[in-house]
Amino acid sequence: MPSQMTRIAMARHPEGDPVAEDFSLERGAMPEPAEGEILVEVTLLSLDPYMRGRMAPVKSYAPSLSVGDTMTGQGVGRVISSKADGFAEGDLVTGMTGWASHAVLKGNEARKLDSDLPPSTALGVLGMPGFTAWTGLKKYGRPKAGETLVVAAATGPVGAMVGQLAKSQGLRTVAIAGGPEKCRIATETFGFDAAIDHRAHDAASLRKALEEAAPDGIDIYWENVGGKVLEAVLPLMNVHGRIPLCGTIAWYSGSDDIADGLPTVWRSILTKRLSVNGLIIFDHWDGFPDFLREVTPKVAADQITWLEDVAEGLENAPAAFMAMLKGGNTGKQIVKLS
Amino acid sequence: MPSQMTRIAMARHPEGDPVAEDFSLERGAMPEPAEGEILVEVTLLSLDPYMRGRMAPVKSYAPSLSVGDTMTGQGVGRVISSKADGFAEGDLVTGMTGWASHAVLKGNEARKLDSDLPPSTALGVLGMPGFTAWTGLKKYGRPKAGETLVVAAATGPVGAMVGQLAKSQGLRTVAIAGGPEKCRIATETFGFDAAIDHRAHDAASLRKALEEAAPDGIDIYWENVGGKVLEAVLPLMNVHGRIPLCGTIAWYSGSDDIADGLPTVWRSILTKRLSVNGLIIFDHWDGFPDFLREVTPKVAADQITWLEDVAEGLENAPAAFMAMLKGGNTGKQIVKLS
Repeated sequence: MPSQMTRIAMARHPEGDPVAEDFSLERGAMPEPAEGEILVEVTLLSLDPYMRGRMAPVKSYAPSLSVGDTMTGQGVGRVISSKADGFAEGDLVTGMTGWASHAVLKGNEARKLDSDLPPSTALGVLGMPGFTAWTGLKKYGRPKAGETLVVAAATGPVGAMVGQLAKSQGLRTVAIAGGPEKCRIATETFGFDAAIDHRAHDAASLRKALEEAAPDGIDIYWENVGGKVLEAVLPLMNVHGRIPLCGTIAWYSGSDDIADGLPTVWRSILTKRLSVNGLIIFDHWDGFPDFLREVTPKVAADQITWLEDVAEGLENAPAAFMAMLKGGNTGKQIVKLS
Repeated sequence: MPSQMTRIAMARHPEGDPVAEDFSLERGAMPEPAEGEILVEVTLLSLDPYMRGRMAPVKSYAPSLSVGDTMTGQGVGRVISSKADGFAEGDLVTGMTGWASHAVLKGNEARKLDSDLPPSTALGVLGMPGFTAWTGLKKYGRPKAGETLVVAAATGPVGAMVGQLAKSQGLRTVAIAGGPEKCRIATETFGFDAAIDHRAHDAASLRKALEEAAPDGIDIYWENVGGKVLEAVLPLMNVHGRIPLCGTIAWYSGSDDIADGLPTVWRSILTKRLSVNGLIIFDHWDGFPDFLREVTPKVAADQITWLEDVAEGLENAPAAFMAMLKGGNTGKQIVKLS
């Protein structure tokens, strides 16, 4: 067993878009598991947009990171030392390892991976992003066959799952994605009925494109982004529409695309009797076993597909994270540790 | 029977706050009921904020008024001629009479009033405003004993009912109202635990006053107004809070009190997992019999109280309506026809 571990720490709170100097690679002594704990050698790490929120110096839905803290995140790895019942050396597990080569986890905070599917699926299609999509669509989207769903960031791991689940339930699905290649992937790989490249449009022409792609209006808008997409979608929402609010990535770094937007949005919610619900998946873990039971066979049978974008090496996690926040990745962003 | 009737028509679409020239008093021939209809002599007319929305030239949740149309509204009156089964001359009824001395209603669009309570209760505490409060609190507020509810326009007929229903279910209730007299009424007449005069505060000091009045945070914000009240309330909303969105009166005439408010509001909905639901009572008429069954005995037993502000004469309806939109009334605004 090596005597040292490495980790990526937050070197300072970012201002606006994160930059390289906001992160630091740190080395330290290998931690030792206490009674009831396991030591894991991390092989795969998940990068997700919510991590940007954790880096802000303000209290959000979870405690924010302090300078010097290891970046939080879910990982997959092998148990190399176990003092927890039910875990043995060599077991493949997933848990909140953080951005680190090794991590100590409590037994009840780790989950053994025993399916035949690739381990990385535990971070994406069968992990937090997939579970977010499944939970939010069911609880707050309340889809009905024949309705129309629009999802932004549609080739990301949440959006792709939302689209596939809705399509399988008989909805018309419209993707919004950044660039022609992602639009192609949205329709060809993920089966969306239509895809719109938001980079090719301002809010006004985006609305026109949406009107063509959603001729019966929009019943469910899966909100990942805010900004001009929200501005274009809102006038097309049908009465009794639903907006599961899962992210506002367009505003993460502070800009505002909608001038005087609030009165318009607030009045639309009223007059169209919309239902807007904030969704943070950490509230819903109770449903995770049901999700795995329902969705794992569909993934195994290729009824639900997924894409990954893999970066190599823990030291490259910050660059991959920064690129992901700007939409530079295609599919679920993973870091493979060497 | 007189040969002429009078009515108030919309003379033009208002720009901003309605003014006297937006209305006209018209005379016309007395209408005659067809088979299945009744002719009603209107004695009481309800004025409600939603009517401002109907005067806008844009499609809203209901068709907007055209120039020359009779102003819409609920009235109470006596049947003076009946061609509908179940109605006889002299019956006291309520229905959508509009702002008029006489109206023809279909039998299935009129409801006979047979309780011992004053007929005006059918327009307020036991009418649309009371039903709005009861429905929205139950469906979208989902109150739990020990929680805190804040309601703006708290001495209005909706707000007063929301406060009394919530208080009876064990919530701490905080009123926001315009001026010291309305604040006194909120606590003394309607039993709110605290009342804050929004006219005495800007958004920042309103927030401080709310922090004192709601030391455990806010679980339910009944949204009647938007503007600076929303701005002050939002940072104090508890996780999993609910916002039944019933009106945005601060913005009815177009001003915006919150600069760059949308990203903040949208992010708050996400991080606090708020549930925001637009409420238009016309969707919920199925529940009206249940409402009457549950609330009528409470009103009869003085467990729920109400206040009315009565203007005299149909010709004075526009002035009373304009004053009401600026908060000039206290309690449910009624017009008594001579």
